[in-house]
Amino acid sequence: MKPRKVLEIKQSIFADNDQEAEKLRTQLKQKKLFLLNLMSSPGSGKTTTLTKTIQARKDQLRIGVMEADIDSDVDAKTISQLGVRTIQLHTGGMCHLDADMTRQGLEGIGTDELDLVILENVGNLVCPAEFDTGAVKNAMILSVPEGHDKPLKYPLMFQVCDVVLVNKIDVLPYFDFDMEKCKEYVHMRNPNALILPICARTGEGIEQWAEWLKEQVAQWQT
Amino acid sequence: MKPRKVLEIKQSIFADNDQEAEKLRTQLKQKKLFLLNLMSSPGSGKTTTLTKTIQARKDQLRIGVMEADIDSDVDAKTISQLGVRTIQLHTGGMCHLDADMTRQGLEGIGTDELDLVILENVGNLVCPAEFDTGAVKNAMILSVPEGHDKPLKYPLMFQVCDVVLVNKIDVLPYFDFDMEKCKEYVHMRNPNALILPICARTGEGIEQWAEWLKEQVAQWQT
Repeated sequence: MKPRKVLEIKQSIFADNDQEAEKLRTQLKQKKLFLLNLMSSPGSGKTTTLTKTIQARKDQLRIGVMEADIDSDVDAKTISQLGVRTIQLHTGGMCHLDADMTRQGLEGIGTDELDLVILENVGNLVCPAEFDTGAVKNAMILSVPEGHDKPLKYPLMFQVCDVVLVNKIDVLPYFDFDMEKCKEYVHMRNPNALILPICARTGEGIEQWAEWLKEQVAQWQT
Repeated sequence: MKPRKVLEIKQSIFADNDQEAEKLRTQLKQKKLFLLNLMSSPGSGKTTTLTKTIQARKDQLRIGVMEADIDSDVDAKTISQLGVRTIQLHTGGMCHLDADMTRQGLEGIGTDELDLVILENVGNLVCPAEFDTGAVKNAMILSVPEGHDKPLKYPLMFQVCDVVLVNKIDVLPYFDFDMEKCKEYVHMRNPNALILPICARTGEGIEQWAEWLKEQVAQWQT
Protein backbone atom coordinates (compact mmCIF):
# COMPACT_ATOMS: atom_id res chain seq x y z
CA MET A 1 0.00 0.00 0.00
CA LYS A 2 1.40 3.38 -1.00
CA PRO A 3 1.33 6.05 1.69
CA ARG A 4 -1.27 8.76 1.41
CA LYS A 5 0.08 11.87 -0.22
CA VAL A 6 -0.99 15.38 -1.09
CA LEU A 7 -0.72 16.72 -4.63
CA GLU A 8 -1.08 20.40 -5.49
CA ILE A 9 -2.74 20.27 -8.89
CA LYS A 10 -2.35 23.16 -11.28
CA GLN A 11 -4.96 24.94 -13.33
CA SER A 12 -5.27 23.43 -16.77
CA ILE A 13 -3.49 24.98 -19.74
CA PHE A 14 -5.80 23.35 -22.28
CA ALA A 15 -8.46 25.45 -23.95
CA ASP A 16 -10.59 22.55 -25.10
CA ASN A 17 -11.57 20.62 -21.99
CA ASP A 18 -14.04 18.37 -23.85
CA GLN A 19 -11.25 17.17 -26.11
CA GLU A 20 -8.94 16.51 -23.14
CA ALA A 21 -11.72 14.61 -21.41
CA GLU A 22 -12.32 12.38 -24.44
CA LYS A 23 -8.58 11.70 -24.70
CA LEU A 24 -8.44 10.72 -21.03
CA ARG A 25 -11.45 8.41 -21.38
CA THR A 26 -9.82 6.66 -24.33
CA GLN A 27 -6.67 6.08 -22.26
CA LEU A 28 -8.74 4.78 -19.35
CA LYS A 29 -10.50 2.32 -21.67
CA GLN A 30 -7.11 1.02 -22.90
CA LYS A 31 -5.96 0.59 -19.29
CA LYS A 32 -9.29 -1.07 -18.31
CA LEU A 33 -9.57 1.48 -15.54
CA PHE A 34 -12.99 2.83 -14.57
CA LEU A 35 -13.14 6.42 -13.30
CA LEU A 36 -16.19 7.57 -11.34
CA ASN A 37 -16.72 11.29 -10.72
CA LEU A 38 -18.65 11.78 -7.48
CA MET A 39 -20.17 15.22 -6.92
CA SER A 40 -22.45 16.89 -4.38
CA SER A 41 -23.01 19.87 -2.10
CA PRO A 42 -20.77 20.29 0.91
CA GLY A 43 -21.94 18.05 3.73
CA SER A 44 -24.20 15.73 1.74
CA GLY A 45 -22.21 12.68 2.85
CA LYS A 46 -19.74 11.98 0.02
CA THR A 47 -16.98 10.64 2.27
CA THR A 48 -19.29 8.45 4.36
CA THR A 49 -20.90 7.05 1.20
CA LEU A 50 -17.46 6.40 -0.24
CA THR A 51 -16.38 4.62 2.96
CA LYS A 52 -19.37 2.28 2.83
CA THR A 53 -18.95 1.68 -0.90
CA ILE A 54 -15.29 0.74 -0.45
CA GLN A 55 -16.08 -1.56 2.48
CA ALA A 56 -18.75 -3.27 0.35
CA ARG A 57 -16.55 -3.96 -2.68
CA LYS A 58 -12.85 -3.72 -1.77
CA ASP A 59 -12.47 -7.51 -1.79
CA GLN A 60 -13.75 -7.70 -5.38
CA LEU A 61 -12.34 -4.53 -6.94
CA ARG A 62 -8.95 -2.82 -6.65
CA ILE A 63 -10.08 0.67 -5.68
CA GLY A 64 -8.25 4.00 -5.56
CA VAL A 65 -9.62 7.30 -4.30
CA MET A 66 -8.72 10.86 -5.29
CA GLU A 67 -9.98 13.38 -2.74
CA ALA A 68 -10.23 16.84 -4.26
CA ASP A 69 -10.40 19.62 -1.75
CA ILE A 70 -9.58 23.28 -1.70
CA ASP A 71 -7.36 23.10 1.31
CA SER A 72 -7.82 20.40 3.95
CA ASP A 73 -7.00 16.69 3.86
CA VAL A 74 -9.50 15.42 6.43
CA ASP A 75 -11.35 13.25 3.89
CA ALA A 76 -8.18 11.62 2.55
CA LYS A 77 -7.17 10.73 6.10
CA THR A 78 -10.52 9.01 6.65
CA ILE A 79 -10.39 7.08 3.38
CA SER A 80 -6.74 6.00 3.70
CA GLN A 81 -7.64 4.18 6.92
CA LEU A 82 -9.73 1.78 4.83
CA GLY A 83 -6.56 0.39 3.27
CA VAL A 84 -7.17 1.59 -0.28
CA ARG A 85 -4.80 3.72 -2.33
CA THR A 86 -5.62 7.39 -1.68
CA ILE A 87 -4.39 10.75 -2.84
CA GLN A 88 -5.37 14.22 -1.71
CA LEU A 89 -5.69 16.75 -4.52
CA HIS A 90 -5.44 20.39 -3.52
CA THR A 91 -7.08 22.62 -6.08
CA GLY A 92 -5.56 25.82 -4.69
CA GLY A 93 -8.94 27.55 -4.38
CA MET A 94 -10.37 26.20 -7.65
CA CYS A 95 -14.02 25.23 -7.36
CA HIS A 96 -13.94 22.27 -9.73
CA LEU A 97 -11.68 19.80 -11.52
CA ASP A 98 -11.30 19.63 -15.26
CA ALA A 99 -9.92 16.76 -17.35
CA ASP A 100 -6.29 17.86 -17.18
CA MET A 101 -6.41 18.32 -13.39
CA THR A 102 -7.96 14.84 -13.17
CA ARG A 103 -5.15 13.45 -15.33
CA GLN A 104 -2.59 15.04 -13.00
CA GLY A 105 -4.35 13.33 -10.10
CA LEU A 106 -4.34 9.94 -11.86
CA GLU A 107 -0.62 10.28 -12.55
CA GLY A 108 -0.12 11.13 -8.88
CA ILE A 109 -2.05 8.17 -7.50
CA GLY A 110 -0.66 5.74 -10.10
CA THR A 111 -3.14 3.73 -12.14
CA ASP A 112 -1.42 0.34 -12.25
CA GLU A 113 -3.25 -2.55 -10.64
CA LEU A 114 -6.46 -0.61 -10.08
CA ASP A 115 -9.93 -1.41 -11.47
CA LEU A 116 -11.77 1.62 -10.18
CA VAL A 117 -10.73 5.14 -9.23
CA ILE A 118 -13.31 7.32 -7.52
CA LEU A 119 -12.80 11.06 -7.75
CA GLU A 120 -14.45 12.89 -4.87
CA ASN A 121 -14.94 16.25 -6.55
CA VAL A 122 -15.08 19.62 -4.73
CA GLY A 123 -18.32 20.05 -2.75
CA ASN A 124 -20.29 22.30 -5.07
CA LEU A 125 -23.47 21.84 -7.14
CA VAL A 126 -22.53 24.40 -9.77
CA CYS A 127 -19.02 24.45 -11.23
CA PRO A 128 -18.04 20.74 -11.20
CA ALA A 129 -21.02 20.03 -13.47
CA GLU A 130 -19.61 22.34 -16.13
CA PHE A 131 -16.35 20.46 -16.62
CA ASP A 132 -16.10 16.95 -18.05
CA THR A 133 -13.38 15.30 -15.92
CA GLY A 134 -12.93 12.40 -18.33
CA ALA A 135 -14.79 10.08 -15.97
CA VAL A 136 -16.68 7.10 -17.37
CA LYS A 137 -19.73 7.88 -15.26
CA ASN A 138 -20.89 10.80 -13.13
CA ALA A 139 -22.68 10.26 -9.85
CA MET A 140 -24.04 12.77 -7.37
CA ILE A 141 -25.39 12.72 -3.87
CA LEU A 142 -28.41 14.76 -2.88
CA SER A 143 -29.09 14.55 0.83
CA VAL A 144 -32.58 14.73 2.32
CA PRO A 145 -31.92 17.90 4.41
CA GLU A 146 -31.03 19.82 1.22
CA GLY A 147 -34.59 19.50 -0.06
CA HIS A 148 -36.31 17.89 -3.03
CA ASP A 149 -36.30 21.11 -5.08
CA LYS A 150 -32.57 21.06 -5.88
CA PRO A 151 -32.99 19.69 -9.45
CA LEU A 152 -35.01 22.84 -10.19
CA LYS A 153 -32.22 25.10 -8.95
CA TYR A 154 -29.09 23.30 -10.15
CA PRO A 155 -30.26 21.91 -13.49
CA LEU A 156 -26.90 21.13 -15.08
CA MET A 157 -25.67 18.99 -12.19
CA PHE A 158 -28.68 16.69 -12.45
CA GLN A 159 -28.48 16.68 -16.24
CA VAL A 160 -24.91 15.36 -16.35
CA CYS A 161 -25.28 12.66 -13.68
CA ASP A 162 -25.93 9.01 -14.51
CA VAL A 163 -26.86 8.23 -10.92
CA VAL A 164 -28.39 10.32 -8.16
CA LEU A 165 -27.93 8.88 -4.68
CA VAL A 166 -30.54 10.33 -2.32
CA ASN A 167 -28.70 10.13 1.00
CA LYS A 168 -29.69 10.44 4.68
CA ILE A 169 -33.08 8.79 4.19
CA ASP A 170 -32.98 7.91 7.91
CA VAL A 171 -33.91 11.53 8.69
CA LEU A 172 -36.86 11.67 6.24
CA PRO A 173 -39.34 11.93 9.17
CA TYR A 174 -37.74 15.20 10.31
CA PHE A 175 -37.67 17.06 6.99
CA ASP A 176 -40.24 18.19 4.42
CA PHE A 177 -38.69 16.08 1.70
CA ASP A 178 -41.00 14.59 -0.92
CA MET A 179 -39.26 11.61 -2.55
CA GLU A 180 -41.79 11.37 -5.39
CA LYS A 181 -41.36 15.05 -6.25
CA CYS A 182 -37.59 14.62 -6.04
CA LYS A 183 -37.73 11.78 -8.58
CA GLU A 184 -40.04 13.78 -10.82
CA TYR A 185 -37.72 16.84 -10.77
CA VAL A 186 -34.58 14.73 -11.37
CA HIS A 187 -36.24 13.06 -14.36
CA MET A 188 -37.29 16.45 -15.72
CA ARG A 189 -33.58 17.22 -15.98
CA ASN A 190 -32.46 13.76 -17.00
CA PRO A 191 -35.02 11.04 -17.83
CA ASN A 192 -32.27 8.37 -17.82
CA ALA A 193 -30.91 9.13 -14.35
CA LEU A 194 -30.92 6.19 -11.95
CA ILE A 195 -32.17 7.32 -8.54
CA LEU A 196 -31.13 5.28 -5.52
CA PRO A 197 -32.28 6.19 -1.99
CA ILE A 198 -29.53 5.36 0.53
CA CYS A 199 -28.42 5.99 4.08
CA ALA A 200 -24.63 5.94 4.16
CA ARG A 201 -24.59 6.14 7.96
CA THR A 202 -26.64 2.95 8.47
CA GLY A 203 -25.63 1.29 5.19
CA GLU A 204 -29.19 1.13 3.82
CA GLY A 205 -29.23 0.94 0.01
CA ILE A 206 -25.43 0.74 -0.26
CA GLU A 207 -25.51 -2.85 -1.55
CA GLN A 208 -27.64 -1.93 -4.58
CA TRP A 209 -25.41 1.07 -5.37
CA ALA A 210 -22.18 -0.91 -4.93
CA GLU A 211 -23.53 -3.65 -7.18
CA TRP A 212 -24.45 -1.12 -9.89
CA LEU A 213 -20.93 0.28 -9.69
CA LYS A 214 -19.33 -3.18 -9.88
CA GLU A 215 -21.40 -4.00 -12.98
CA GLN A 216 -20.33 -0.73 -14.63
CA VAL A 217 -16.66 -1.54 -13.98
CA ALA A 218 -17.11 -5.06 -15.41
CA GLN A 219 -18.78 -3.65 -18.55
CA TRP A 220 -15.98 -1.09 -19.02
CA GLN A 221 -13.29 -3.75 -18.69
CA THR A 222 -14.71 -6.09 -21.34
CA MET B 1 -45.41 47.22 -4.28
CA LYS B 2 -43.59 46.59 -7.55
CA PRO B 3 -44.34 43.28 -9.19
CA ARG B 4 -41.69 40.59 -8.91
CA LYS B 5 -39.48 40.52 -11.97
CA VAL B 6 -36.66 38.51 -13.44
CA LEU B 7 -33.40 40.14 -14.50
CA GLU B 8 -30.79 38.35 -16.59
CA ILE B 9 -27.57 39.81 -15.22
CA LYS B 10 -24.49 39.84 -17.40
CA GLN B 11 -20.97 38.83 -16.57
CA SER B 12 -18.95 41.78 -15.36
CA ILE B 13 -16.68 43.68 -17.72
CA PHE B 14 -14.57 45.14 -14.89
CA ALA B 15 -11.15 43.67 -14.21
CA ASP B 16 -10.80 45.04 -10.70
CA ASN B 17 -13.72 43.70 -8.69
CA ASP B 18 -12.37 44.99 -5.37
CA GLN B 19 -12.39 48.53 -6.73
CA GLU B 20 -15.95 48.13 -8.07
CA ALA B 21 -17.05 46.75 -4.71
CA GLU B 22 -15.58 49.72 -2.81
CA LYS B 23 -17.27 52.10 -5.22
CA LEU B 24 -20.62 50.39 -4.71
CA ARG B 25 -20.23 50.48 -0.91
CA THR B 26 -19.52 54.21 -1.03
CA GLN B 27 -22.68 54.77 -3.07
CA LEU B 28 -24.70 52.63 -0.65
CA LYS B 29 -23.39 54.70 2.27
CA GLN B 30 -24.51 57.90 0.54
CA LYS B 31 -27.95 56.40 -0.06
CA LYS B 32 -28.13 55.10 3.54
CA LEU B 33 -28.88 51.69 2.10
CA PHE B 34 -27.53 48.59 3.85
CA LEU B 35 -26.68 45.61 1.66
CA LEU B 36 -26.35 42.16 3.23
CA ASN B 37 -24.77 39.34 1.24
CA LEU B 38 -26.21 36.01 2.39
CA MET B 39 -24.31 32.89 1.36
CA SER B 40 -24.49 29.14 2.01
CA SER B 41 -24.51 25.67 0.52
CA PRO B 42 -27.55 24.59 -1.47
CA GLY B 43 -30.32 23.50 0.86
CA SER B 44 -29.02 25.04 4.09
CA GLY B 45 -32.18 27.06 4.53
CA LYS B 46 -31.40 30.52 3.10
CA THR B 47 -34.92 31.20 1.85
CA THR B 48 -36.65 30.00 5.03
CA THR B 49 -34.24 32.06 7.17
CA LEU B 50 -34.89 35.06 4.96
CA THR B 51 -38.65 34.57 5.27
CA LYS B 52 -38.49 34.55 9.07
CA THR B 53 -36.10 37.52 9.14
CA ILE B 54 -38.42 39.57 6.95
CA GLN B 55 -41.45 38.64 9.04
CA ALA B 56 -39.56 39.71 12.18
CA ARG B 57 -38.49 43.16 10.95
CA LYS B 58 -40.60 44.24 7.97
CA ASP B 59 -42.61 46.65 10.11
CA GLN B 60 -39.43 48.45 11.21
CA LEU B 61 -37.27 48.28 8.09
CA ARG B 62 -38.05 48.77 4.42
CA ILE B 63 -36.61 45.56 3.01
CA GLY B 64 -35.83 44.44 -0.54
CA VAL B 65 -34.60 41.02 -1.61
CA MET B 66 -32.46 40.04 -4.60
CA GLU B 67 -32.65 36.31 -5.27
CA ALA B 68 -29.68 35.14 -7.30
CA ASP B 69 -30.15 31.81 -8.97
CA ILE B 70 -28.72 30.04 -11.94
CA ASP B 71 -32.03 29.31 -13.52
CA SER B 72 -35.19 28.96 -11.46
CA ASP B 73 -37.30 31.56 -9.68
CA VAL B 74 -38.85 29.41 -6.94
CA ASP B 75 -37.21 31.42 -4.14
CA ALA B 76 -38.30 34.80 -5.50
CA LYS B 77 -41.87 33.51 -5.71
CA THR B 78 -41.75 32.52 -2.03
CA ILE B 79 -40.25 35.81 -0.89
CA SER B 80 -42.53 38.05 -2.97
CA GLN B 81 -45.52 36.58 -1.13
CA LEU B 82 -44.25 38.32 2.02
CA GLY B 83 -45.07 41.70 0.51
CA VAL B 84 -41.50 42.98 0.18
CA ARG B 85 -39.86 44.23 -2.98
CA THR B 86 -38.22 41.27 -4.73
CA ILE B 87 -36.19 40.66 -7.83
CA GLN B 88 -34.93 37.43 -9.33
CA LEU B 89 -31.40 37.60 -10.73
CA HIS B 90 -30.50 34.94 -13.25
CA THR B 91 -26.74 34.48 -13.42
CA GLY B 92 -26.87 32.47 -16.64
CA GLY B 93 -24.85 29.61 -15.20
CA MET B 94 -22.41 31.78 -13.24
CA CYS B 95 -21.59 30.37 -9.82
CA HIS B 96 -21.28 33.66 -7.96
CA LEU B 97 -22.08 37.37 -8.09
CA ASP B 98 -19.44 40.07 -8.27
CA ALA B 99 -19.85 43.77 -7.47
CA ASP B 100 -20.94 44.79 -10.95
CA MET B 101 -23.55 42.03 -11.15
CA THR B 102 -24.79 43.15 -7.73
CA ARG B 103 -24.99 46.74 -8.97
CA GLN B 104 -27.07 45.57 -11.97
CA GLY B 105 -29.38 43.84 -9.50
CA LEU B 106 -29.72 46.97 -7.35
CA GLU B 107 -30.56 49.05 -10.41
CA GLY B 108 -33.16 46.42 -11.33
CA ILE B 109 -34.87 46.33 -7.95
CA GLY B 110 -34.64 50.10 -7.46
CA THR B 111 -33.02 51.37 -4.26
CA ASP B 112 -35.31 54.27 -3.39
CA GLU B 113 -37.22 54.00 -0.13
CA LEU B 114 -35.38 50.94 1.08
CA ASP B 115 -33.26 50.57 4.25
CA LEU B 116 -32.01 47.07 3.69
CA VAL B 117 -31.43 44.93 0.64
CA ILE B 118 -30.59 41.27 1.19
CA LEU B 119 -28.79 39.50 -1.61
CA GLU B 120 -29.41 35.75 -1.53
CA ASN B 121 -26.25 34.64 -3.32
CA VAL B 122 -25.93 31.43 -5.38
CA GLY B 123 -25.89 28.30 -3.18
CA ASN B 124 -22.17 27.52 -3.14
CA LEU B 125 -19.51 27.55 -0.40
CA VAL B 126 -16.63 28.23 -2.77
CA CYS B 127 -16.94 30.86 -5.48
CA PRO B 128 -19.20 33.48 -3.84
CA ALA B 129 -16.57 33.90 -1.09
CA GLU B 130 -13.99 34.96 -3.66
CA PHE B 131 -15.90 37.97 -4.94
CA ASP B 132 -16.65 41.06 -2.88
CA THR B 133 -20.21 41.99 -3.89
CA GLY B 134 -19.98 45.45 -2.37
CA ALA B 135 -22.15 44.37 0.56
CA VAL B 136 -21.75 46.09 3.92
CA LYS B 137 -21.72 42.76 5.75
CA ASN B 138 -21.45 39.11 4.75
CA ALA B 139 -23.47 36.42 6.47
CA MET B 140 -23.57 32.70 5.86
CA ILE B 141 -25.71 29.80 6.92
CA LEU B 142 -24.20 26.48 7.91
CA SER B 143 -26.86 23.88 8.57
CA VAL B 144 -26.46 21.09 11.11
CA PRO B 145 -26.79 18.23 8.58
CA GLU B 146 -23.77 19.60 6.66
CA GLY B 147 -21.45 18.84 9.59
CA HIS B 148 -19.26 20.86 11.93
CA ASP B 149 -16.11 20.31 9.86
CA LYS B 150 -17.07 22.70 7.05
CA PRO B 151 -14.85 25.59 8.26
CA LEU B 152 -11.89 23.24 7.77
CA LYS B 153 -12.88 22.49 4.19
CA TYR B 154 -14.15 25.86 2.95
CA PRO B 155 -11.80 28.26 4.75
CA LEU B 156 -12.36 31.40 2.68
CA MET B 157 -16.14 31.37 3.12
CA PHE B 158 -15.82 31.41 6.90
CA GLN B 159 -13.01 33.94 6.75
CA VAL B 160 -15.07 36.55 4.88
CA CYS B 161 -18.28 36.23 6.90
CA ASP B 162 -19.18 38.55 9.76
CA VAL B 163 -21.93 36.24 10.96
CA VAL B 164 -22.37 32.48 10.77
CA LEU B 165 -25.93 31.30 11.35
CA VAL B 166 -25.93 27.66 12.40
CA ASN B 167 -29.33 26.55 11.12
CA LYS B 168 -31.57 23.50 11.66
CA ILE B 169 -30.60 23.11 15.33
CA ASP B 170 -33.91 21.27 15.82
CA VAL B 171 -32.34 18.20 14.19
CA LEU B 172 -29.19 18.23 16.36
CA PRO B 173 -30.25 14.98 18.09
CA TYR B 174 -30.19 13.12 14.76
CA PHE B 175 -26.76 14.22 13.50
CA ASP B 176 -23.17 13.92 14.72
CA PHE B 177 -22.78 17.69 14.91
CA ASP B 178 -20.55 19.10 17.65
CA MET B 179 -21.50 22.74 18.25
CA GLU B 180 -18.39 23.46 20.33
CA LYS B 181 -16.10 22.09 17.63
CA CYS B 182 -18.05 24.07 15.03
CA LYS B 183 -17.44 27.30 16.98
CA GLU B 184 -13.77 26.43 17.44
CA TYR B 185 -13.28 25.76 13.71
CA VAL B 186 -15.16 28.92 12.67
CA HIS B 187 -13.02 31.01 15.01
CA MET B 188 -9.86 29.39 13.64
CA ARG B 189 -10.81 30.96 10.30
CA ASN B 190 -12.22 34.18 11.70
CA PRO B 191 -11.88 35.03 15.40
CA ASN B 192 -14.33 37.94 15.03
CA ALA B 193 -17.18 35.95 13.49
CA LEU B 194 -20.45 36.09 15.38
CA ILE B 195 -21.99 32.61 15.59
CA LEU B 196 -25.74 32.37 16.11
CA PRO B 197 -27.51 29.00 16.38
CA ILE B 198 -30.97 29.22 14.84
CA CYS B 199 -33.83 27.12 13.57
CA ALA B 200 -35.50 28.95 10.72
CA ARG B 201 -38.33 26.41 10.57
CA THR B 202 -39.44 26.93 14.20
CA GLY B 203 -38.18 30.50 14.50
CA GLU B 204 -35.72 29.74 17.32
CA GLY B 205 -32.88 32.27 17.47
CA ILE B 206 -34.36 34.46 14.70
CA GLU B 207 -35.10 37.34 17.07
CA GLN B 208 -31.44 37.70 18.11
CA TRP B 209 -30.29 37.57 14.48
CA ALA B 210 -32.94 40.04 13.28
CA GLU B 211 -32.01 42.42 16.10
CA TRP B 212 -28.29 42.22 15.16
CA LEU B 213 -29.23 43.02 11.56
CA LYS B 214 -31.45 45.95 12.56
CA GLU B 215 -28.62 47.41 14.67
CA GLN B 216 -26.20 47.09 11.77
CA VAL B 217 -28.61 48.94 9.49
CA ALA B 218 -29.05 51.71 12.09
CA GLN B 219 -25.26 52.09 12.46
CA TRP B 220 -24.81 52.28 8.69
CA GLN B 221 -27.50 54.93 8.35
CA THR B 222 -26.01 57.33 10.92
